[in-house]
Amino acid sequence: MLRFLTAGESHGQLLMGVIEGIPSGLAITASEINSDLARRQTGYGRGGRMRIEKDTAEITCGVRWGRTLGSPIGLIIKNRDWVNWTDRMSPDPSMSGSIPPETRPRPGHADLCGIIKYAHTDVRNVLERASARETAMRVALGAVAKIFLSVFSVRIVGHVIEIGGIKARPGNVSVDLLSDRVEKSELRCADKKAEARMKKSIDEAKKNGDTVGGVFEIITTNVPAGLGSYSQWDKRMNARLAYAVMSIQAIKGVEIGIGFDAAASFGSDVHDAIYYDRSKRKFYRKTNRAGGLKAV
Amino acid sequence: MLRFLTAGESHGQLLMGVIEGIPSGLAITASEINSDLARRQTGYGRGGRMRIEKDTAEITCGVRWGRTLGSPIGLIIKNRDWVNWTDRMSPDPSMSGSIPPETRPRPGHADLCGIIKYAHTDVRNVLERASARETAMRVALGAVAKIFLSVFSVRIVGHVIEIGGIKARPGNVSVDLLSDRVEKSELRCADKKAEARMKKSIDEAKKNGDTVGGVFEIITTNVPAGLGSYSQWDKRMNARLAYAVMSIQAIKGVEIGIGFDAAASFGSDVHDAIYYDRSKRKFYRKTNRAGGLKAV
Amino acid sequence: MLRFLTAGESHGQLLMGVIEGIPSGLAITASEINSDLARRQTGYGRGGRMRIEKDTAEITCGVRWGRTLGSPIGLIIKNRDWVNWTDRMSPDPSMSGSIPPETRPRPGHADLCGIIKYAHTDVRNVLERASARETAMRVALGAVAKIFLSVFSVRIVGHVIEIGGIKARPGNVSVDLLSDRVEKSELRCADKKAEARMKKSIDEAKKNGDTVGGVFEIITTNVPAGLGSYSQWDKRMNARLAYAVMSIQAIKGVEIGIGFDAAASFGSDVHDAIYYDRSKRKFYRKTNRAGGLKAV
Amino acid sequence: MLRFLTAGESHGQLLMGVIEGIPSGLAITASEINSDLARRQTGYGRGGRMRIEKDTAEITCGVRWGRTLGSPIGLIIKNRDWVNWTDRMSPDPSMSGSIPPETRPRPGHADLCGIIKYAHTDVRNVLERASARETAMRVALGAVAKIFLSVFSVRIVGHVIEIGGIKARPGNVSVDLLSDRVEKSELRCADKKAEARMKKSIDEAKKNGDTVGGVFEIITTNVPAGLGSYSQWDKRMNARLAYAVMSIQAIKGVEIGIGFDAAASFGSDVHDAIYYDRSKRKFYRKTNRAGGLKAV
Repeated sequence: MLRFLTAGESHGQLLMGVIEGIPSGLAITASEINSDLARRQTGYGRGGRMRIEKDTAEITCGVRWGRTLGSPIGLIIKNRDWVNWTDRMSPDPSMSGSIPPETRPRPGHADLCGIIKYAHTDVRNVLERASARETAMRVALGAVAKIFLSVFSVRIVGHVIEIGGIKARPGNVSVDLLSDRVEKSELRCADKKAEARMKKSIDEAKKNGDTVGGVFEIITTNVPAGLGSYSQWDKRMNARLAYAVMSIQAIKGVEIGIGFDAAASFGSDVHDAIYYDRSKRKFYRKTNRAGGLKAV
Repeated sequence: MLRFLTAGESHGQLLMGVIEGIPSGLAITASEINSDLARRQTGYGRGGRMRIEKDTAEITCGVRWGRTLGSPIGLIIKNRDWVNWTDRMSPDPSMSGSIPPETRPRPGHADLCGIIKYAHTDVRNVLERASARETAMRVALGAVAKIFLSVFSVRIVGHVIEIGGIKARPGNVSVDLLSDRVEKSELRCADKKAEARMKKSIDEAKKNGDTVGGVFEIITTNVPAGLGSYSQWDKRMNARLAYAVMSIQAIKGVEIGIGFDAAASFGSDVHDAIYYDRSKRKFYRKTNRAGGLKAV
Repeated sequence: MLRFLTAGESHGQLLMGVIEGIPSGLAITASEINSDLARRQTGYGRGGRMRIEKDTAEITCGVRWGRTLGSPIGLIIKNRDWVNWTDRMSPDPSMSGSIPPETRPRPGHADLCGIIKYAHTDVRNVLERASARETAMRVALGAVAKIFLSVFSVRIVGHVIEIGGIKARPGNVSVDLLSDRVEKSELRCADKKAEARMKKSIDEAKKNGDTVGGVFEIITTNVPAGLGSYSQWDKRMNARLAYAVMSIQAIKGVEIGIGFDAAASFGSDVHDAIYYDRSKRKFYRKTNRAGGLKAV
Repeated sequence: MLRFLTAGESHGQLLMGVIEGIPSGLAITASEINSDLARRQTGYGRGGRMRIEKDTAEITCGVRWGRTLGSPIGLIIKNRDWVNWTDRMSPDPSMSGSIPPETRPRPGHADLCGIIKYAHTDVRNVLERASARETAMRVALGAVAKIFLSVFSVRIVGHVIEIGGIKARPGNVSVDLLSDRVEKSELRCADKKAEARMKKSIDEAKKNGDTVGGVFEIITTNVPAGLGSYSQWDKRMNARLAYAVMSIQAIKGVEIGIGFDAAASFGSDVHDAIYYDRSKRKFYRKTNRAGGLKAV
């Protein structure tokens, strides 16, 4: 079993992460983690800070000479703007008051709920941790997990399929081709035409001081059959994936396979019929509406 | 912290559940649990067995003279058809072979994946636990949790909003009125006109030996602010709710608030603006697009 | 990872247990579990009830035709005296008051602490769950775990080494011989002479309405190297074993290997020197003061 | 629920710790944590390195202006000797081989077991994490927990009661007096005479390149009744304390209250009789053989 904890505020000194359960002997370098962190920071329409500052993770524990030890792996991402926030976010009581409190809770954030829960008067005490910046460490820890999965040839590709109501038509292409296109796209969108319209939609929103929503899809290949289990509610793969995805800030919905489209379909159009290839002695399916997770 | 484990096969002797962490002194009776089990068994278009057999839960542990003891609560639901399955599902090795093995894995079920994972040759060894019958015990344990929540006036109402592509328009009604309508509806749908069309859609599908999908909505009232936390990924309320809901068989998507509709909207149309009522000295919002979970 | 929950009161209808994580295909029968339950009930000096009533466990879930399914395993032990307690321990509120409340908390039990914690006025509401009877289900679930370990030839033998201050000298015998002697002994003590004196000590205490304490030793053979881990505090084997053992009612101390004797020794007399047998190409040790758990 | 993870190797760059679940608003400073770290490093007979180098913890996350935020608290302890180990313990594959491998597993350590478990050939890959140095971060995180407990006036005092077979007689003194004496003692032993003899025993062992064992006692005051629970095995306080204590390197035994002495006693001499003071309307006990944990 893997487990991890993260810590760190958006403008604090650093973000920390400890992940436990990665086997020993796995080849792993900071640069692999950092390439995922770099990808996190790209993206059309991002704020200026995002583009200028480059997050880099240091491996501080658990890896020696390029190989995991079997001990917990510790990662640190320093906040580059720390020099401007040293007093304002200092753990030291003597720095108290070095910046006036934030008193206006923002909608669409945990601000109001957070000050109620934790009895804060300064909204900053909430927004610093509730921030999407927290996902930087999750990306870094996720990179470690991805390296581990790559040993089993498991590959994970994510791409944008909708922004501001404009839907992409990525076409029925191989994962390799899809991945290529996505890496080249500023919006991580494989449909060039849609991408152009999405950009326009972003530009317009930006001009009005607004933002637009979107949808992305994650494709995983070479996953062995039988991960998770129907034996107990909390081991089900559908559930675990939804748990992880919905824990990301700003995500308000998750589907597996055709998802909500199943609601408007006949069962016969939803289930993935099972075939057997006698020559290869293998089961196979011609469709994948269940998203590979057949334990409906 | 509440935790629970369930056990039991679809045609086995019984279903078992243990739930731990319910405080002492809570008033609780089997009949309250059984009324939720009865509701689970109603529903237009259900199979015959569902309608004839009535599940009843026995409280076997943890409750004395109508009050919880603080000890774990144990529940049992006997499978009424057990008499016909005693040999076929017996734990006794001498009963081996009393029914021929199921050899055809069904699509839309865990059958194929399960026999691979657990190295079974008889598909029955999978389908008996992977079955939706497992949710009977979850309903019973959930009823206990609901009774606990009712102490805090928390109320949970669920209703069908789409079947076979037909969408209900429940109207902007109070939870009380919605609940009344739902309890009277065979489909647990508050929109009578939509209900009629949904029934037709079910009838047609049935005639063709098929099924139709659907969507339901869960509304919870009086939930105190501050449940869950943004402090760590696995404590986030959005995530926990998705985890629980997606652990139910056949569910392939979950949304909170306006969910996927947010993807096609501007941020300004998604966030729920915060207002302050000076006379009541209270924050309030005029919209609820985040589903009450503001920690976007 | 194995996990389990138990439920049940001492004079309630039954004890329940659910254990999860046992692999599929394991051969298992109720009679194997029951032979461990029978051993729990023997023992010189036990109360009359212990000797007359025989606990038997029913496998209600998770096992079919003598093999585990991979689903959770459910066990039930009926309380044989239930007929006399049906009203007194009924979950039904209408039975309230069918026996006067226990108002005197006993020393050496959780009584006083329990009524404070759970706000009970009837001590019975505590003693029914805090009772050592709870271990009956743990023995049954432990029997399942033992059967699983036996696949790896892991064997667990327990024997009494001290009662009422009288120490046994089991001698330097093989585990097989030790086990034989233990099974034949009324006190589960391998030293016949010491056993005779222990019995006398028990008889005397009994005459005075008193009890005597004791110490038992557990020996496990064929455990593979590398269970547990030093990587995180909660994975350490020393710690996990102590956790499990100290969770048993009435146990107030646990040692591994020579335990507290190490405190009065030089390091050189405590550590188990490592040798290497070139012909067998194997490490070995001549001593076992660390109890086989070398991760001091 | 509190949870924490630590990471870090003995000669690595630093030790990391994340603790989660500490409420917001708690006053906490690095100097309080560091005073506990300083106490860890004192002690007669310690190696030279221990005396020269001073561990200091930095609070990197979760605390602002002297108050906890409710977010996870992150701590870092830099290894002062890192400059000499930068290459030898580098996560960078290019540093591979900058120090020859350790090939001799030491007895009394996890060395041999660790290289088997994690398939290492260099023993250093084990000893760096299995090291007692790991407890430095546990002391720091424990200091945070102690500060939290101090809000409830819970106080924790530890003192040495045996070294090399020499037992201390701390006398029947108040916790305040005991604590005073302990803080002044080089051996953290409240019995001056015994301390002198213990020191001699340590000196002698040292001369022979040997070490001596010992026993310490932990006393906790003002603990509220009802922590933990008899409701499930893993919530029992006896068990949880043993779990934590036995997770510390080199500890091979744990007792609560009179512990193993109970084995040689009559029940009547072990249980702590309950009295009731009518004027104060309070239960009390004259003895404390169960170590305050009455749920025998």
